[in-house]
Amino acid sequence: MDDTERVAKTEVLLRQVALAITHRGREHLADFNITPPQFAALLELMKNGEITMGELCQKLFLACSTVTDLIHRMEKSGFVERFKDSKDRRVIRLRVLPAGVEVYEDVIRTRKAYLASVLKNLKELEQEQLIVSLEQLHALMKPQE
Amino acid sequence: MDDTERVAKTEVLLRQVALAITHRGREHLADFNITPPQFAALLELMKNGEITMGELCQKLFLACSTVTDLIHRMEKSGFVERFKDSKDRRVIRLRVLPAGVEVYEDVIRTRKAYLASVLKNLKELEQEQLIVSLEQLHALMKPQE
Repeated sequence: MDDTERVAKTEVLLRQVALAITHRGREHLADFNITPPQFAALLELMKNGEITMGELCQKLFLACSTVTDLIHRMEKSGFVERFKDSKDRRVIRLRVLPAGVEVYEDVIRTRKAYLASVLKNLKELEQEQLIVSLEQLHALMKPQE
Repeated sequence: MDDTERVAKTEVLLRQVALAITHRGREHLADFNITPPQFAALLELMKNGEITMGELCQKLFLACSTVTDLIHRMEKSGFVERFKDSKDRRVIRLRVLPAGVEVYEDVIRTRKAYLASVLKNLKELEQEQLIVSLEQLHALMKPQE
């Protein structure tokens, strides 16, 4: 394979793998009371702590009107809550509630069980090579994020 | 690393890589007159030829009301058209129009240019190992699709 062929091959594979991850992810979420965009929001809130609505919109690359709507439904489900910043009462922050942590843990557990069933088809060395390759890819794609 | 650690590590990396692909994909689409879900629909139509609306909903894992809306906007942009099946006039099929093919080609060109700039940071052997790992992963995640 030359450079051009490797790029073309990698482009197709990344698209296929991202799609497979998305589809498997949706299947796993279907068993829980949370939609894929809501789960993406939950992941950001778990990772970044008590961020503002504006920060969440940026991290999700979504319009704030969409995110407001989405957070509203997550509040109804008892996954998150809005609260006023103690230093600046005009700023609204978001925090994850216990029911949100629980659904997060359930989903991650389901995903890990699925991945364990997938990875057992690979040799230990292949599993480790996969991790190395994904780490390299993530490190290279991340900086511009 | 033991089995559990490898699964946990792979789960996080896949999530991060899928997110990075999604974010980069959105950035690339921002330069074109097409949204991420519309582009996902376009990819399915390019891959599967003249499928029905129902088939497209299934392939996209989306509610048909969402897909109908999305296709409506793509028709307005001149990317696709609906037509009646020649054998069964009650069945509506979809086809990609030249403007749709053009936007598809432009987006893929942008993605390949980006990936070429990413991959040039890896040694040739690392690039090939990435391809092998992605192929293994795709083969293992695909069957249940």
